[in-house]
Amino acid sequence: MPAQPLAVSLGDPAGIGPEVVGKCWDYRARLDLPPFVAIGDPRSLAAVWDGPIATIDDPREADSAFDIGLPLLALASAEPDVPGVPSVAGAHCSLDSLELAVGLARSGSASAVVTGPVSKVQLYAIGFSHPGQTEFVAERCGVSSSNVAMMLAGPTLRTVPVTTHIPLADASSLLSTSLIEARARATLRGLQRNFGIADPRLAIAGFNPHAGEGGALGREEIEIIIPAIDNLRAEGWDVTGPHPADTMFHAAARARYDAALCMYHDQALIPLKALHFDEGVNLTLGLPIVRTAPDHGTAFDIAGLDRAEPTAMAAAIRMAASCAAQRAANLHRA
Amino acid sequence: MPAQPLAVSLGDPAGIGPEVVGKCWDYRARLDLPPFVAIGDPRSLAAVWDGPIATIDDPREADSAFDIGLPLLALASAEPDVPGVPSVAGAHCSLDSLELAVGLARSGSASAVVTGPVSKVQLYAIGFSHPGQTEFVAERCGVSSSNVAMMLAGPTLRTVPVTTHIPLADASSLLSTSLIEARARATLRGLQRNFGIADPRLAIAGFNPHAGEGGALGREEIEIIIPAIDNLRAEGWDVTGPHPADTMFHAAARARYDAALCMYHDQALIPLKALHFDEGVNLTLGLPIVRTAPDHGTAFDIAGLDRAEPTAMAAAIRMAASCAAQRAANLHRA
Repeated sequence: MPAQPLAVSLGDPAGIGPEVVGKCWDYRARLDLPPFVAIGDPRSLAAVWDGPIATIDDPREADSAFDIGLPLLALASAEPDVPGVPSVAGAHCSLDSLELAVGLARSGSASAVVTGPVSKVQLYAIGFSHPGQTEFVAERCGVSSSNVAMMLAGPTLRTVPVTTHIPLADASSLLSTSLIEARARATLRGLQRNFGIADPRLAIAGFNPHAGEGGALGREEIEIIIPAIDNLRAEGWDVTGPHPADTMFHAAARARYDAALCMYHDQALIPLKALHFDEGVNLTLGLPIVRTAPDHGTAFDIAGLDRAEPTAMAAAIRMAASCAAQRAANLHRA
Repeated sequence: MPAQPLAVSLGDPAGIGPEVVGKCWDYRARLDLPPFVAIGDPRSLAAVWDGPIATIDDPREADSAFDIGLPLLALASAEPDVPGVPSVAGAHCSLDSLELAVGLARSGSASAVVTGPVSKVQLYAIGFSHPGQTEFVAERCGVSSSNVAMMLAGPTLRTVPVTTHIPLADASSLLSTSLIEARARATLRGLQRNFGIADPRLAIAGFNPHAGEGGALGREEIEIIIPAIDNLRAEGWDVTGPHPADTMFHAAARARYDAALCMYHDQALIPLKALHFDEGVNLTLGLPIVRTAPDHGTAFDIAGLDRAEPTAMAAAIRMAASCAAQRAANLHRA
């Protein structure tokens, strides 16, 4: 019996999501992609992509349909969307697609979820109250958002930010020993479950220049971060730090850990995107399901111009498949 | 008549400075290095390096001595120093060496200064009151430290931090429109004077995630950074931003500017060291003299073990020579 397909939501129908998903199907052999089923408005695909669409009603049909066309579970937008022009109808369609994709994974009809890029501004306009898709998926899975972690993963680096989309001046007051520990545990367990790393090594960054230089350049390391590291070590985890953030991302340093836990958004995102701009994958750790996303936005400015590269979406699909396979293997071993 | 030599201070005699300077002489042909004169304690060199030392009394002898041995202006430490064991006597020696190197460049007897790594902790213990060598050199040149800028330069990226060695939680309150403008002008003029870039392009980073997302994730961009950009543009400079810091350091983005102005230490240092860890050069802009330094510290832990790589010191020497030659060419053109 074939494995369940991956569920891929197209994201905002006016963004580049439909185009990059279509291109992933075009290049499925070269990009080494497993069968997946897209979820969204077929018109948003047809508007930007000339390939064959295989509309299906049941995800179990995806596997056989995949050789003929891009399998699609159709969810129509109330209005046809124009590439590059976000709308209220499109926001509803992107939310419905996300909801269905998560539901299929929760019920076991899909092996994992890959989410296309949405517009937060548009979602907020229709009453969406979560900071982003990550927190929405966590809620649908019944997991507190402090117990999930957003991992950004490229070929030679994985980073996880402790604080994310907040003003940088607030990061110090929002950091806490317990939050660092929660994110660290989600990361360490995530490395075990999704990547099969039995004894994961976590490098924890400092917050201040030179990791505070013994308190001379800030006290967050002494008061918040080091106590978390001590607690994690007492639990038996292989945790190092606090490392000066500027000397932990060159090749020799990266070889010494499996993931880096960072204190704020740009500390995690700057090195990841400097090194792996076109192939960064966003993986949500701490969920009962596998969820990945390409590490780019809707890019409304280039939507419909045939300029969007499918590299990151393909990396997200490959990683979702690999993590789902690892989890299945864990179950068989257990 | 030969050009004046470069003056290279050995830095702390117990650090890796003497070793990397000696290795630069060893590999002077392969590393494509011009004549330079070292300044410091000959015993600190002899303790870690077996090459020939050509002690001289006058920097004008450096050029002819350079083929025979490493030209050295000797400044003895009060006590012989042990590699890896910093001392008060060594701190005095490192400060005297720095003072002499800067004096030679100020008087025109050296074409530029390259400073070896010092121990701030040791210098503070003997009454040194500057945050680092950069501010000391600025004072010796009669330049206010807010009008100099610390550029970190690698083969494909140059960054300049606006704020440097301060707690990150203080960065927001220390940022100001006038400070950003002063650092930007020092950077832009420095690109013209030292690199011969007639119309330099400066990319200015935001402070918050996603450059504040229009105020939703912080207001420093709106209240502090954008007014500085507007003022700099009104002066005719080619300045862009504020850019989200995580999407400005991949190869395609780097090709669009000559330097990136960053709001805090790690925003500038993380991408530079992730991309160019072994070859980063620290160049002080805004001075009447050329001053560079390798972007590494004393590394007391490996001093005397013959493990220090001269790559960064060699890059600092090459860049000092190149900047000095560019400045000389500017004078001839003017």
